[in-house]
Amino acid sequence: MSDAPATAGRRARGGGGAARRAERTAVSIETAKYIERNIPNYEVLTEEALQVIEANAETVLAEIGINFVDNPEGLARWKAAGAQVDGERVRIPRGLARKLCATAPSEYTQHARNPARNVVVGGKNLVLAPVYGPPFVRDVDGGRRYATMADFEKFVKLAYMSKWLHHSGGTVCEPTDVPVNKRHLDMLLAHMIYSDKPFMGSVTEPSRAQDSIEMCEILFGKEFVQENTVMTSLININSPLTFDSIMMGALEVFAANNQASIISPFIVGGAMAPVSVAGTLTQVLAEVMAGVAYSQIIRPGSPVIMGTFVTSIDMNSGAPTFGTPEASHITYGAGQLARRLGLPYRSAGAFCGSKLPDAQAAYESANSLNMGLLSGVNFMLHSCGWLEGGLVASFEKFVMDADQLGVMHHFARGVDMSENGQAMGAIAEVGPGGHYLGCEHTQANFKSAFWRSDLFDYKPFETWDEEGARDTQILAKARVAKMLDTYQQPPLDPEIEARLRAYVAEKKASMPDAFT
Amino acid sequence: MSDAPATAGRRARGGGGAARRAERTAVSIETAKYIERNIPNYEVLTEEALQVIEANAETVLAEIGINFVDNPEGLARWKAAGAQVDGERVRIPRGLARKLCATAPSEYTQHARNPARNVVVGGKNLVLAPVYGPPFVRDVDGGRRYATMADFEKFVKLAYMSKWLHHSGGTVCEPTDVPVNKRHLDMLLAHMIYSDKPFMGSVTEPSRAQDSIEMCEILFGKEFVQENTVMTSLININSPLTFDSIMMGALEVFAANNQASIISPFIVGGAMAPVSVAGTLTQVLAEVMAGVAYSQIIRPGSPVIMGTFVTSIDMNSGAPTFGTPEASHITYGAGQLARRLGLPYRSAGAFCGSKLPDAQAAYESANSLNMGLLSGVNFMLHSCGWLEGGLVASFEKFVMDADQLGVMHHFARGVDMSENGQAMGAIAEVGPGGHYLGCEHTQANFKSAFWRSDLFDYKPFETWDEEGARDTQILAKARVAKMLDTYQQPPLDPEIEARLRAYVAEKKASMPDAFT
Repeated sequence: MSDAPATAGRRARGGGGAARRAERTAVSIETAKYIERNIPNYEVLTEEALQVIEANAETVLAEIGINFVDNPEGLARWKAAGAQVDGERVRIPRGLARKLCATAPSEYTQHARNPARNVVVGGKNLVLAPVYGPPFVRDVDGGRRYATMADFEKFVKLAYMSKWLHHSGGTVCEPTDVPVNKRHLDMLLAHMIYSDKPFMGSVTEPSRAQDSIEMCEILFGKEFVQENTVMTSLININSPLTFDSIMMGALEVFAANNQASIISPFIVGGAMAPVSVAGTLTQVLAEVMAGVAYSQIIRPGSPVIMGTFVTSIDMNSGAPTFGTPEASHITYGAGQLARRLGLPYRSAGAFCGSKLPDAQAAYESANSLNMGLLSGVNFMLHSCGWLEGGLVASFEKFVMDADQLGVMHHFARGVDMSENGQAMGAIAEVGPGGHYLGCEHTQANFKSAFWRSDLFDYKPFETWDEEGARDTQILAKARVAKMLDTYQQPPLDPEIEARLRAYVAEKKASMPDAFT
Repeated sequence: MSDAPATAGRRARGGGGAARRAERTAVSIETAKYIERNIPNYEVLTEEALQVIEANAETVLAEIGINFVDNPEGLARWKAAGAQVDGERVRIPRGLARKLCATAPSEYTQHARNPARNVVVGGKNLVLAPVYGPPFVRDVDGGRRYATMADFEKFVKLAYMSKWLHHSGGTVCEPTDVPVNKRHLDMLLAHMIYSDKPFMGSVTEPSRAQDSIEMCEILFGKEFVQENTVMTSLININSPLTFDSIMMGALEVFAANNQASIISPFIVGGAMAPVSVAGTLTQVLAEVMAGVAYSQIIRPGSPVIMGTFVTSIDMNSGAPTFGTPEASHITYGAGQLARRLGLPYRSAGAFCGSKLPDAQAAYESANSLNMGLLSGVNFMLHSCGWLEGGLVASFEKFVMDADQLGVMHHFARGVDMSENGQAMGAIAEVGPGGHYLGCEHTQANFKSAFWRSDLFDYKPFETWDEEGARDTQILAKARVAKMLDTYQQPPLDPEIEARLRAYVAEKKASMPDAFT
């Protein structure tokens, strides 16, 4: 399988003549390759601080332990692996969790149905995926409202068309008009049909994780799925130190099938973890080590990501706060801990607490995105579209954030120190008091020299004013409309599509609707 | 003189009984101490790359040289220092400029009339100053219009009241209703009277630099000014490689009087410097070394800052662009070069190209502010209020940016690794499945644990909606109004104020108005 997206051929897997015919008529969508950093990481913690946190995390696991809830088989597995089990409490002797983590790969390839969109998660790489989980959507004209499946499909299309997004994500919004026990089927189908980028599986029930596997077997072929990773799914830990049976059940299904999971403490600081950075990092590390160790007990070598979702809290109101310095400290520190564990790292995103895609949203999001890039994050969920603390997926903010992801791509390239980059000839040619616009070096390089936004306003004041003095939100609204207007479905073998639709229809018919 | 602002006493210098009386009735304004970083810098360039750029800069100075325009005395000084002078072209033998730079101090104290507001520029410190230079102002209600002296005074008051700003700045906007040849007097008077924070001198004519010195002699005492630095002023270099007589004349006045100057190439990439990062850094370093060397020829040991103002350019429209990855590369790289030169470093700011304080403005500004903090900037001009590529000083953006500067203060504190920071007791107390909000550690630490915005919306959706669904700009408008309503002038000896006013009146009467 190719590890070189954006250059490899774009033939849909399992495609026959119909797929090739579909491909010939399709518009080619430009997607940048995942970011391969040519820049250093920023490290906020000293070696000594890291050792203290690592020692403290071992103490937490050994002396306090974790709870494995409603999961007798899991408890038995822990006992067999050498942990001390007391009721639902699992105490892990010093060193055991880290030793178990050692079989987890430091990087893995997640395959897409279009091999050109495969991503390699880990190392110096950064894979960008959209927002996950909001029950509401917002746009300028419609305001804030419950999300529907129609909204979901629009976000999948926008993600597919966004140049700087490498991943289609998972629950880009909650399609609240579809029964809870069936919506995962429609969501997976949308990712598979409307996009050819990699995607995430369902985690809300172990059986839905199993459905995700089965749909992937239709899309990729049964054998291919067993031999390769085709999903990266989000397993949240119930912090502090609690692993519930639903999330662990989903993890068990994915690990057993060699599919990747993000083991991710979900922490509002001061509520689910101590109110201090070092204390939070200690708990995060303990939780991740326990979760990753468990995945390796299920199937050694199954791919897994160290996740960290942390927000600070406004102690006046209890509201989670985003883009804050404490969240940055934690994100940088957790990146260092992940690298020392030898695991890919998931954190950061275009986080904000604002109700609107306004200046507050952008300050907070930019703070979060910048720290994500420099902290060595390998998989960034929520990299676009997140609004109002994750309650809302915003159409306008989706394209605003997605545009900013281009800044990260260009920054990560590092500085060109070639002879052309040094430009000594240009400095000599132009000389004191001269002008570079016309010089040969500028002419040869200007097209690729500077990143430019595809969204922001760069017009002269008078032009901008005459055109209606539009702010970013209004520019973004126009961009969303244009993208959805010009969307074209990526080619997929009609037979595969028919089998996927049949699977979904059959599953839906097999059970009554449930809305809780 | 105290180097410990925010703790030292607040008696105005030279104050008698009247000053003490004024002080007793004044409202105390809380200003944070300048940032003392307890975090590492981010370094984007390798040692090898730095050496290449440094060698190339020496080549530029030795082989291409710089132009010293309309300045025969300056040319004579260069010749005497060992440079090769040919017409207005000055070629500086390899190593000479760096050697001359060696007498410049790596840090210096700029004194404020309130010693509690003194700042130490250099080392790990970061001093924040507001926007400089815009001919226009903007606010929500009044829109965009030419700036006046009334606007100028408002900005000085806002800067004085902004907790995270350490410096009153200089031309916070251009008071276009005052004659060009007299406005520096009103601007200096406003900084001296309406604020007690440190400020900048006038550079638009050597005679105006001299006026700045003389007004400082009234404010601080003549002897004090000769023995201490009481102004940091902005000397822009006419890139590429050109030093005009006005800026050099001002530099000569300030250096001779031991007052600090920022030697700052002003570069729109691809126009005033090569279109590449390494080429731009080479030219910036050459220009700064020549300017700093010249300041040390004038008076060895006079304080000076390595400045770097660089924007990228939108090659489609020719517009300067902000918050871009290439500007970040240059800012990080120039920081490394400044530290190797042993000079304080000025760069970054809340830069943006947007016409409004909207999401574009905030993304771009946050990118710039974050890179400024992590690149080791010591003096950050434009840290709040900048809009529309610097053409506009925005009242709302001033308080938005000023609020975000709090994020930088808290991030720079680094991670608390004390026993309290480690919080092992809290993790043990709460245990798996517990809740931290009520625990002892949280109760003891919550007030100072997390930075919170004084401006942003953290309210529940319903409350926010009922209160008018205000965006950041509208919240900022209310904050501006409230600050200006509650402003109180910091105490100043009435006799000093009267002498300053007399000086300004006399100077103004001594010459006819000029508007160019």
